[in-house]
Amino acid sequence: MTKKAKINAAILIIGNEILSGRTQDTNTSTLAIWLNSIGVRVEEVRVIPDDEKKIIEILNFLRSEYSYVFTTGGIGPTHDDITAQSVSKAFGLKYEIHKEAFKILEAYYKPGEFNEGRQKMAWMPESANLILNPTSGAPGFNVENVFSLPGVPSILKSMLGGLTNRIVGGKPIKSLTISLRTVESEIAKSLTKVQNENKDVEIGSYPFFQAGKLGVSIVIRSEDQSKIEKCNSQILKFVNEKKIEVVER
Amino acid sequence: MTKKAKINAAILIIGNEILSGRTQDTNTSTLAIWLNSIGVRVEEVRVIPDDEKKIIEILNFLRSEYSYVFTTGGIGPTHDDITAQSVSKAFGLKYEIHKEAFKILEAYYKPGEFNEGRQKMAWMPESANLILNPTSGAPGFNVENVFSLPGVPSILKSMLGGLTNRIVGGKPIKSLTISLRTVESEIAKSLTKVQNENKDVEIGSYPFFQAGKLGVSIVIRSEDQSKIEKCNSQILKFVNEKKIEVVER
Repeated sequence: MTKKAKINAAILIIGNEILSGRTQDTNTSTLAIWLNSIGVRVEEVRVIPDDEKKIIEILNFLRSEYSYVFTTGGIGPTHDDITAQSVSKAFGLKYEIHKEAFKILEAYYKPGEFNEGRQKMAWMPESANLILNPTSGAPGFNVENVFSLPGVPSILKSMLGGLTNRIVGGKPIKSLTISLRTVESEIAKSLTKVQNENKDVEIGSYPFFQAGKLGVSIVIRSEDQSKIEKCNSQILKFVNEKKIEVVER
Repeated sequence: MTKKAKINAAILIIGNEILSGRTQDTNTSTLAIWLNSIGVRVEEVRVIPDDEKKIIEILNFLRSEYSYVFTTGGIGPTHDDITAQSVSKAFGLKYEIHKEAFKILEAYYKPGEFNEGRQKMAWMPESANLILNPTSGAPGFNVENVFSLPGVPSILKSMLGGLTNRIVGGKPIKSLTISLRTVESEIAKSLTKVQNENKDVEIGSYPFFQAGKLGVSIVIRSEDQSKIEKCNSQILKFVNEKKIEVVER
Protein backbone atom coordinates (compact mmCIF):
# COMPACT_ATOMS: atom_id res chain seq x y z
CA MET A 1 0.00 0.00 0.00
CA THR A 2 1.62 3.29 -1.02
CA LYS A 3 1.42 6.42 1.09
CA LYS A 4 -0.85 8.20 -1.40
CA ALA A 5 -3.41 5.40 -1.35
CA LYS A 6 -3.76 5.48 2.42
CA ILE A 7 -6.38 7.63 4.09
CA ASN A 8 -4.62 9.02 7.11
CA ALA A 9 -4.79 11.87 9.58
CA ALA A 10 -2.75 13.94 11.98
CA ILE A 11 -4.03 15.55 15.17
CA LEU A 12 -2.66 18.96 16.19
CA ILE A 13 -3.35 19.78 19.82
CA ILE A 14 -2.93 23.47 20.47
CA GLY A 15 -2.58 24.42 24.09
CA ASN A 16 -0.08 25.44 26.75
CA GLU A 17 -2.26 23.68 29.35
CA ILE A 18 -1.43 20.27 27.87
CA LEU A 19 2.30 21.05 27.62
CA SER A 20 2.42 22.24 31.24
CA GLY A 21 0.85 18.98 32.39
CA ARG A 22 -2.03 20.84 34.02
CA THR A 23 -4.60 19.28 31.70
CA GLN A 24 -4.64 15.67 30.60
CA ASP A 25 -5.43 15.40 26.89
CA THR A 26 -8.24 12.97 26.14
CA ASN A 27 -9.20 14.30 22.70
CA THR A 28 -6.53 12.23 20.92
CA SER A 29 -8.16 9.01 22.03
CA THR A 30 -11.69 10.25 21.20
CA LEU A 31 -10.67 11.39 17.72
CA ALA A 32 -8.57 8.31 16.99
CA ILE A 33 -11.31 5.83 17.90
CA TRP A 34 -13.87 7.75 15.83
CA LEU A 35 -11.49 8.07 12.87
CA ASN A 36 -10.61 4.36 12.94
CA SER A 37 -14.31 3.55 12.84
CA ILE A 38 -14.64 5.47 9.56
CA GLY A 39 -11.45 4.07 8.06
CA VAL A 40 -8.96 6.84 8.78
CA ARG A 41 -5.71 5.94 10.52
CA VAL A 42 -4.10 8.54 12.82
CA GLU A 43 -0.39 8.54 12.05
CA GLU A 44 0.88 11.47 14.06
CA VAL A 45 -0.13 13.67 16.98
CA ARG A 46 1.58 16.89 17.93
CA VAL A 47 1.05 19.07 20.95
CA ILE A 48 2.27 22.63 20.51
CA PRO A 49 1.94 25.92 22.42
CA ASP A 50 -0.45 28.81 21.71
CA ASP A 51 2.14 30.33 19.37
CA GLU A 52 1.00 31.68 16.01
CA LYS A 53 4.25 31.11 14.17
CA LYS A 54 4.48 27.49 15.31
CA ILE A 55 0.81 26.78 14.54
CA ILE A 56 1.18 28.11 10.99
CA GLU A 57 4.42 26.29 10.28
CA ILE A 58 3.32 22.93 11.65
CA LEU A 59 -0.20 23.10 10.24
CA ASN A 60 1.15 23.79 6.76
CA PHE A 61 3.44 20.79 7.06
CA LEU A 62 0.76 18.43 8.38
CA ARG A 63 -1.92 19.40 5.86
CA SER A 64 0.43 18.66 2.98
CA GLU A 65 1.55 15.37 4.50
CA TYR A 66 -1.76 13.79 5.64
CA SER A 67 -5.24 13.31 4.13
CA TYR A 68 -6.82 15.12 7.07
CA VAL A 69 -5.69 17.31 9.95
CA PHE A 70 -7.76 17.85 13.10
CA THR A 71 -6.83 20.73 15.38
CA THR A 72 -8.16 20.92 18.93
CA GLY A 73 -8.22 23.95 21.20
CA GLY A 74 -7.80 27.69 20.86
CA ILE A 75 -11.17 28.61 19.35
CA GLY A 76 -12.75 30.29 22.40
CA PRO A 77 -13.16 33.99 23.17
CA THR A 78 -9.99 34.78 25.17
CA HIS A 79 -6.60 36.23 24.21
CA ASP A 80 -4.95 32.80 24.18
CA ASP A 81 -7.42 31.51 21.57
CA ILE A 82 -5.51 32.08 18.35
CA THR A 83 -6.34 29.03 16.26
CA ALA A 84 -8.76 30.73 13.83
CA GLN A 85 -6.41 33.58 12.98
CA SER A 86 -3.46 31.17 12.68
CA VAL A 87 -5.38 28.83 10.33
CA SER A 88 -6.37 31.87 8.22
CA LYS A 89 -2.73 32.88 7.88
CA ALA A 90 -1.62 29.30 7.15
CA PHE A 91 -4.01 29.20 4.18
CA GLY A 92 -3.41 32.84 3.17
CA LEU A 93 -7.11 33.58 3.73
CA LYS A 94 -8.72 36.67 5.22
CA TYR A 95 -9.61 36.42 8.93
CA GLU A 96 -13.11 37.89 9.08
CA ILE A 97 -16.56 37.62 10.56
CA HIS A 98 -18.32 34.50 9.27
CA LYS A 99 -21.92 35.61 8.65
CA GLU A 100 -23.51 32.25 9.36
CA ALA A 101 -21.47 31.73 12.54
CA PHE A 102 -22.39 35.26 13.65
CA LYS A 103 -26.10 34.48 13.17
CA ILE A 104 -25.83 31.19 15.06
CA LEU A 105 -24.06 32.85 17.98
CA GLU A 106 -26.38 35.86 18.01
CA ALA A 107 -29.39 33.53 18.21
CA TYR A 108 -27.72 31.39 20.90
CA TYR A 109 -27.26 34.21 23.42
CA LYS A 110 -29.95 36.26 25.16
CA PRO A 111 -30.48 39.77 23.78
CA GLY A 112 -27.69 42.05 25.00
CA GLU A 113 -25.39 39.15 25.93
CA PHE A 114 -23.68 38.77 22.54
CA ASN A 115 -20.71 40.85 23.64
CA GLU A 116 -17.31 41.49 22.05
CA GLY A 117 -15.73 38.36 23.53
CA ARG A 118 -18.49 36.18 22.15
CA GLN A 119 -18.38 37.91 18.77
CA LYS A 120 -14.70 36.91 18.51
CA MET A 121 -15.90 33.33 18.10
CA ALA A 122 -17.53 34.30 14.77
CA TRP A 123 -14.17 35.37 13.33
CA MET A 124 -12.83 32.65 11.03
CA PRO A 125 -10.92 32.05 7.83
CA GLU A 126 -12.83 33.49 4.84
CA SER A 127 -15.41 31.06 3.41
CA ALA A 128 -14.73 28.36 6.02
CA ASN A 129 -17.30 25.56 6.34
CA LEU A 130 -18.86 25.54 9.76
CA ILE A 131 -18.79 22.52 12.07
CA LEU A 132 -21.96 22.79 14.09
CA ASN A 133 -21.84 22.63 17.88
CA PRO A 134 -24.92 21.07 19.48
CA THR A 135 -23.53 21.61 23.00
CA SER A 136 -22.52 25.23 23.42
CA GLY A 137 -23.33 27.14 20.24
CA ALA A 138 -19.91 28.26 19.04
CA PRO A 139 -19.12 26.37 15.81
CA GLY A 140 -15.83 24.92 14.72
CA PHE A 141 -14.69 25.32 11.12
CA ASN A 142 -13.22 23.43 8.22
CA VAL A 143 -10.94 24.70 5.44
CA GLU A 144 -9.94 22.16 2.78
CA ASN A 145 -8.58 19.13 4.68
CA VAL A 146 -8.22 20.93 8.04
CA PHE A 147 -10.91 20.64 10.73
CA SER A 148 -10.70 22.94 13.77
CA LEU A 149 -12.47 21.75 16.89
CA PRO A 150 -12.65 23.05 20.46
CA GLY A 151 -10.47 21.75 23.28
CA VAL A 152 -13.22 20.96 25.81
CA PRO A 153 -13.63 17.16 25.47
CA SER A 154 -17.41 16.95 25.93
CA ILE A 155 -18.01 19.67 23.33
CA LEU A 156 -15.56 18.17 20.85
CA LYS A 157 -17.25 14.79 21.21
CA SER A 158 -20.69 16.28 20.53
CA MET A 159 -19.46 17.76 17.23
CA LEU A 160 -18.06 14.61 15.61
CA GLY A 161 -21.40 13.11 14.59
CA GLY A 162 -22.04 16.04 12.25
CA LEU A 163 -18.67 15.58 10.60
CA THR A 164 -18.84 11.93 9.56
CA ASN A 165 -20.30 12.61 6.11
CA ARG A 166 -17.53 15.11 5.32
CA ILE A 167 -14.70 12.61 5.83
CA VAL A 168 -14.02 10.14 3.05
CA GLY A 169 -12.39 7.21 4.80
CA GLY A 170 -11.13 3.84 3.71
CA LYS A 171 -12.25 0.51 5.12
CA PRO A 172 -12.80 0.68 8.88
CA ILE A 173 -9.77 -0.54 10.80
CA LYS A 174 -10.78 -3.58 12.81
CA SER A 175 -9.04 -4.88 15.87
CA LEU A 176 -9.07 -7.92 18.09
CA THR A 177 -7.59 -8.12 21.57
CA ILE A 178 -6.38 -11.33 23.23
CA SER A 179 -5.56 -10.92 26.91
CA LEU A 180 -3.27 -13.44 28.54
CA ARG A 181 -2.16 -14.30 32.05
CA THR A 182 1.54 -14.17 31.22
CA VAL A 183 4.40 -11.72 30.81
CA GLU A 184 5.71 -10.35 27.52
CA SER A 185 9.04 -12.13 27.64
CA GLU A 186 7.29 -15.56 27.72
CA ILE A 187 5.60 -14.96 24.38
CA ALA A 188 7.99 -12.54 22.65
CA LYS A 189 9.65 -15.12 20.40
CA SER A 190 6.42 -16.83 19.28
CA LEU A 191 4.70 -13.51 18.71
CA THR A 192 7.60 -12.25 16.57
CA LYS A 193 7.15 -15.35 14.41
CA VAL A 194 3.44 -14.58 13.89
CA GLN A 195 4.25 -10.94 13.05
CA ASN A 196 6.92 -11.99 10.55
CA GLU A 197 4.48 -14.35 8.83
CA ASN A 198 1.80 -11.62 8.65
CA LYS A 199 3.71 -8.48 7.82
CA ASP A 200 0.70 -6.43 6.67
CA VAL A 201 -1.11 -6.90 9.99
CA GLU A 202 -0.30 -4.68 12.96
CA ILE A 203 0.35 -6.77 16.07
CA GLY A 204 0.97 -4.95 19.35
CA SER A 205 1.81 -6.33 22.77
CA TYR A 206 0.87 -4.39 25.92
CA PRO A 207 1.58 -5.43 29.50
CA PHE A 208 -1.10 -4.71 32.10
CA PHE A 209 -1.68 -5.02 35.84
CA GLN A 210 -5.17 -6.09 36.89
CA ALA A 211 -6.33 -7.08 40.36
CA GLY A 212 -2.71 -7.42 41.43
CA LYS A 213 -1.80 -9.78 38.60
CA LEU A 214 0.38 -9.27 35.55
CA GLY A 215 -0.96 -9.86 32.08
CA VAL A 216 -0.38 -9.04 28.42
CA SER A 217 -2.91 -7.84 25.87
CA ILE A 218 -2.12 -8.68 22.27
CA VAL A 219 -3.88 -6.36 19.83
CA ILE A 220 -4.26 -7.39 16.18
CA ARG A 221 -5.27 -4.60 13.77
CA SER A 222 -6.12 -4.73 10.07
CA GLU A 223 -8.78 -3.60 7.61
CA ASP A 224 -9.17 -7.27 6.66
CA GLN A 225 -11.09 -9.43 9.16
CA SER A 226 -9.80 -12.68 7.63
CA LYS A 227 -6.19 -11.59 8.25
CA ILE A 228 -7.06 -10.83 11.86
CA GLU A 229 -8.61 -14.31 12.23
CA LYS A 230 -5.51 -15.94 10.74
CA CYS A 231 -3.23 -14.22 13.26
CA ASN A 232 -5.67 -15.00 16.06
CA SER A 233 -5.48 -18.74 15.25
CA GLN A 234 -1.69 -18.69 15.11
CA ILE A 235 -1.49 -16.88 18.43
CA LEU A 236 -4.02 -19.14 20.17
CA LYS A 237 -2.02 -22.13 18.88
CA PHE A 238 1.18 -21.14 20.73
CA VAL A 239 -0.84 -19.94 23.73
CA ASN A 240 -2.36 -23.42 24.05
CA GLU A 241 0.98 -25.14 23.57
CA LYS A 242 2.50 -22.98 26.32
CA LYS A 243 -0.55 -23.63 28.56
CA ILE A 244 -1.10 -19.87 29.02
CA GLU A 245 -4.48 -18.83 30.39
CA VAL A 246 -6.64 -16.50 28.25
CA VAL A 247 -8.37 -13.93 30.50
CA GLU A 248 -11.23 -11.46 30.24
CA ARG A 249 -10.39 -7.75 30.36
CA MET B 1 14.93 35.51 26.31
CA THR B 2 16.59 33.84 23.34
CA LYS B 3 15.92 30.25 22.36
CA LYS B 4 19.42 29.11 23.29
CA ALA B 5 19.15 30.46 26.82
CA LYS B 6 15.98 28.55 27.55
CA ILE B 7 16.08 25.11 29.06
CA ASN B 8 13.38 23.23 27.23
CA ALA B 9 12.31 19.73 26.35
CA ALA B 10 10.33 17.67 23.88
CA ILE B 11 8.50 14.45 24.63
CA LEU B 12 8.42 11.73 21.97
CA ILE B 13 5.74 9.13 22.61
CA ILE B 14 6.38 5.99 20.61
CA GLY B 15 3.43 3.68 20.29
CA ASN B 16 0.69 2.53 17.91
CA GLU B 17 -1.58 1.97 20.93
CA ILE B 18 -1.75 5.72 21.60
CA LEU B 19 -2.39 6.56 17.92
CA SER B 20 -5.17 3.97 17.69
CA GLY B 21 -6.90 5.51 20.70
CA ARG B 22 -6.77 2.19 22.55
CA THR B 23 -4.52 3.59 25.27
CA GLN B 24 -4.86 7.01 26.83
CA ASP B 25 -1.44 8.64 27.24
CA THR B 26 -0.81 9.93 30.76
CA ASN B 27 2.98 10.11 30.61
CA THR B 28 2.98 13.58 29.01
CA SER B 29 1.34 15.08 32.05
CA THR B 30 3.59 13.17 34.49
CA LEU B 31 6.75 14.21 32.67
CA ALA B 32 5.64 17.82 32.17
CA ILE B 33 4.77 18.39 35.83
CA TRP B 34 8.06 16.86 36.95
CA LEU B 35 10.08 18.84 34.37
CA ASN B 36 8.39 22.12 35.32
CA SER B 37 9.31 21.50 38.94
CA ILE B 38 12.99 21.33 37.99
CA GLY B 39 12.84 24.32 35.64
CA VAL B 40 12.44 22.64 32.25
CA ARG B 41 9.61 23.75 30.01
CA VAL B 42 8.05 21.19 27.66
CA GLU B 43 7.58 22.88 24.29
CA GLU B 44 6.49 20.05 22.05
CA VAL B 45 5.03 16.56 22.27
CA ARG B 46 4.84 14.13 19.38
CA VAL B 47 3.14 10.78 19.21
CA ILE B 48 4.46 8.53 16.44
CA PRO B 49 4.07 4.88 15.42
CA ASP B 50 6.47 2.00 16.13
CA ASP B 51 8.30 2.79 12.87
CA GLU B 52 12.09 2.82 12.88
CA LYS B 53 12.50 5.31 10.05
CA LYS B 54 10.13 7.81 11.66
CA ILE B 55 11.65 7.42 15.12
CA ILE B 56 15.16 8.10 13.78
CA GLU B 57 14.14 11.09 11.68
CA ILE B 58 12.03 12.77 14.36
CA LEU B 59 14.41 12.00 17.23
CA ASN B 60 17.31 13.54 15.31
CA PHE B 61 15.27 16.67 14.71
CA LEU B 62 14.05 17.00 18.30
CA ARG B 63 17.44 16.38 19.93
CA SER B 64 18.99 19.17 17.87
CA GLU B 65 16.11 21.54 18.59
CA TYR B 66 15.55 21.09 22.35
CA SER B 67 17.75 20.90 25.45
CA TYR B 68 16.31 17.50 26.37
CA VAL B 69 14.23 14.81 24.69
CA PHE B 70 12.30 12.17 26.61
CA THR B 71 11.04 9.13 24.74
CA THR B 72 8.40 6.85 26.22
CA GLY B 73 7.52 3.34 25.13
CA GLY B 74 9.05 0.63 23.01
CA ILE B 75 11.74 -0.67 25.38
CA GLY B 76 10.14 -4.00 26.33
CA PRO B 77 10.94 -7.50 25.08
CA THR B 78 8.52 -7.93 22.15
CA HIS B 79 8.87 -7.42 18.39
CA ASP B 80 7.12 -4.02 18.51
CA ASP B 81 9.70 -2.67 20.99
CA ILE B 82 12.17 -0.96 18.67
CA THR B 83 13.14 2.19 20.58
CA ALA B 84 16.62 1.05 21.66
CA GLN B 85 17.70 0.00 18.18
CA SER B 86 16.21 3.16 16.67
CA VAL B 87 18.00 5.43 19.16
CA SER B 88 21.25 3.58 18.40
CA LYS B 89 20.81 4.26 14.68
CA ALA B 90 19.82 7.89 15.27
CA PHE B 91 23.13 8.46 17.08
CA GLY B 92 25.16 6.21 14.76
CA LEU B 93 26.05 4.00 17.74
CA LYS B 94 26.35 0.21 17.91
CA TYR B 95 23.26 -1.61 19.24
CA GLU B 96 24.74 -4.14 21.65
CA ILE B 97 24.40 -5.87 24.99
CA HIS B 98 24.93 -3.38 27.81
CA LYS B 99 26.97 -5.30 30.40
CA GLU B 100 25.60 -3.49 33.44
CA ALA B 101 21.99 -3.79 32.23
CA PHE B 102 22.58 -7.49 31.55
CA LYS B 103 23.86 -8.00 35.12
CA ILE B 104 20.90 -6.11 36.61
CA LEU B 105 18.40 -8.15 34.63
CA GLU B 106 20.19 -11.46 35.29
CA ALA B 107 20.07 -10.76 39.04
CA TYR B 108 16.42 -9.67 38.85
CA TYR B 109 15.10 -12.95 37.45
CA LYS B 110 15.13 -16.39 39.05
CA PRO B 111 17.80 -18.78 37.74
CA GLY B 112 16.70 -20.18 34.36
CA GLU B 113 14.14 -17.43 33.78
CA PHE B 114 16.45 -14.93 32.08
CA ASN B 115 15.35 -16.03 28.63
CA GLU B 116 15.96 -14.59 25.15
CA GLY B 117 13.00 -12.15 25.38
CA ARG B 118 14.27 -10.75 28.66
CA GLN B 119 17.84 -10.55 27.38
CA LYS B 120 16.58 -8.30 24.58
CA MET B 121 16.00 -5.63 27.23
CA ALA B 122 19.77 -5.49 27.85
CA TRP B 123 20.40 -4.46 24.22
CA MET B 124 21.03 -0.70 24.05
CA PRO B 125 23.06 1.96 22.27
CA GLU B 126 26.79 1.47 22.94
CA SER B 127 27.94 3.16 26.17
CA ALA B 128 24.46 4.41 27.12
CA ASN B 129 23.95 5.58 30.69
CA LEU B 130 21.39 3.45 32.48
CA ILE B 131 18.24 4.84 34.06
CA LEU B 132 17.51 2.54 36.97
CA ASN B 133 14.09 0.98 37.36
CA PRO B 134 13.05 0.37 40.96
CA THR B 135 9.74 -1.19 39.90
CA SER B 136 10.38 -3.93 37.39
CA GLY B 137 14.11 -4.33 36.87
CA ALA B 138 14.55 -3.42 33.20
CA PRO B 139 16.45 -0.12 33.00
CA GLY B 140 15.90 2.79 30.64
CA PHE B 141 18.85 4.52 29.06
CA ASN B 142 20.28 7.91 28.30
CA VAL B 143 22.49 9.01 25.40
CA GLU B 144 23.59 12.65 25.39
CA ASN B 145 20.40 14.72 25.79
CA VAL B 146 18.00 11.86 25.03
CA PHE B 147 16.35 9.86 27.84
CA SER B 148 14.44 6.68 26.94
CA LEU B 149 11.79 5.56 29.40
CA PRO B 150 9.19 2.79 29.36
CA GLY B 151 5.57 3.34 28.37
CA VAL B 152 3.89 1.81 31.42
CA PRO B 153 2.93 4.90 33.50
CA SER B 154 3.59 3.49 36.99
CA ILE B 155 7.04 2.25 35.97
CA LEU B 156 7.94 5.50 34.21
CA LYS B 157 6.91 7.45 37.30
CA SER B 158 9.10 5.32 39.57
CA MET B 159 12.17 6.08 37.44
CA LEU B 160 12.03 9.88 37.45
CA GLY B 161 13.40 10.35 40.99
CA GLY B 162 16.72 8.82 39.94
CA LEU B 163 16.97 11.20 36.99
CA THR B 164 16.60 14.57 38.70
CA ASN B 165 20.32 15.07 39.29
CA ARG B 166 21.10 14.42 35.60
CA ILE B 167 18.90 17.25 34.31
CA VAL B 168 20.25 20.77 34.54
CA GLY B 169 17.14 22.93 34.64
CA GLY B 170 16.49 26.63 34.96
CA LYS B 171 14.38 28.25 37.64
CA PRO B 172 11.30 26.19 38.47
CA ILE B 173 8.24 27.39 36.58
CA LYS B 174 5.66 28.54 39.10
CA SER B 175 1.97 28.79 38.50
CA LEU B 176 -1.10 30.22 40.19
CA THR B 177 -4.68 29.30 39.36
CA ILE B 178 -7.68 31.56 39.96
CA SER B 179 -11.01 29.82 39.46
CA LEU B 180 -14.05 31.95 38.79
CA ARG B 181 -17.80 31.41 38.60
CA THR B 182 -18.13 33.05 35.17
CA VAL B 183 -17.75 32.30 31.48
CA GLU B 184 -14.75 33.20 29.34
CA SER B 185 -16.52 35.82 27.26
CA GLU B 186 -17.32 37.90 30.38
CA ILE B 187 -13.66 38.34 31.23
CA ALA B 188 -11.98 38.07 27.81
CA LYS B 189 -11.44 41.79 27.29
CA SER B 190 -10.11 42.53 30.80
CA LEU B 191 -7.86 39.47 30.71
CA THR B 192 -6.41 40.49 27.35
CA LYS B 193 -5.49 43.84 28.93
CA VAL B 194 -3.64 42.09 31.78
CA GLN B 195 -1.82 39.84 29.29
CA ASN B 196 -0.80 42.83 27.15
CA GLU B 197 0.59 44.63 30.20
CA ASN B 198 2.54 41.52 31.26
CA LYS B 199 3.85 40.08 28.04
CA ASP B 200 6.53 37.87 29.62
CA VAL B 201 4.01 36.04 31.81
CA GLU B 202 1.96 33.17 30.39
CA ILE B 203 -1.74 33.65 31.14
CA GLY B 204 -4.15 30.91 30.11
CA SER B 205 -7.91 30.75 30.39
CA TYR B 206 -9.68 27.38 30.68
CA PRO B 207 -13.43 26.82 30.93
CA PHE B 208 -14.63 24.04 33.26
CA PHE B 209 -17.85 22.35 34.31
CA GLN B 210 -18.10 21.44 37.99
CA ALA B 211 -21.17 20.20 39.86
CA GLY B 212 -23.34 21.30 36.94
CA LYS B 213 -21.99 24.85 36.91
CA LEU B 214 -19.77 26.64 34.42
CA GLY B 215 -16.54 28.26 35.48
CA VAL B 216 -13.21 29.50 34.19
CA SER B 217 -9.77 28.81 35.58
CA ILE B 218 -7.15 31.42 34.87
CA VAL B 219 -3.62 30.05 35.08
CA ILE B 220 -0.67 32.42 35.49
CA ARG B 221 2.78 30.93 34.83
CA SER B 222 6.24 32.42 35.21
CA GLU B 223 9.62 31.69 36.75
CA ASP B 224 9.22 34.95 38.71
CA GLN B 225 6.83 34.84 41.67
CA SER B 226 6.58 38.64 41.85
CA LYS B 227 5.34 38.79 38.25
CA ILE B 228 2.71 36.19 39.08
CA GLU B 229 1.59 38.26 42.07
CA LYS B 230 1.36 41.38 39.93
CA CYS B 231 -0.93 39.66 37.41
CA ASN B 232 -2.92 38.11 40.24
CA SER B 233 -3.66 41.59 41.71
CA GLN B 234 -4.66 42.99 38.34
CA ILE B 235 -6.98 40.05 37.70
CA LEU B 236 -8.57 40.16 41.16
CA LYS B 237 -9.16 43.90 40.64
CA PHE B 238 -11.38 43.40 37.58
CA VAL B 239 -12.94 40.30 39.13
CA ASN B 240 -14.06 42.41 42.11
CA GLU B 241 -15.28 45.23 39.90
CA LYS B 242 -17.36 42.78 37.86
CA LYS B 243 -18.64 41.14 41.10
CA ILE B 244 -17.50 37.71 39.89
CA GLU B 245 -17.28 34.99 42.53
CA VAL B 246 -13.90 33.31 43.13
CA VAL B 247 -14.40 29.58 43.70
CA GLU B 248 -12.40 26.65 45.05
CA ARG B 249 -11.41 23.91 42.61
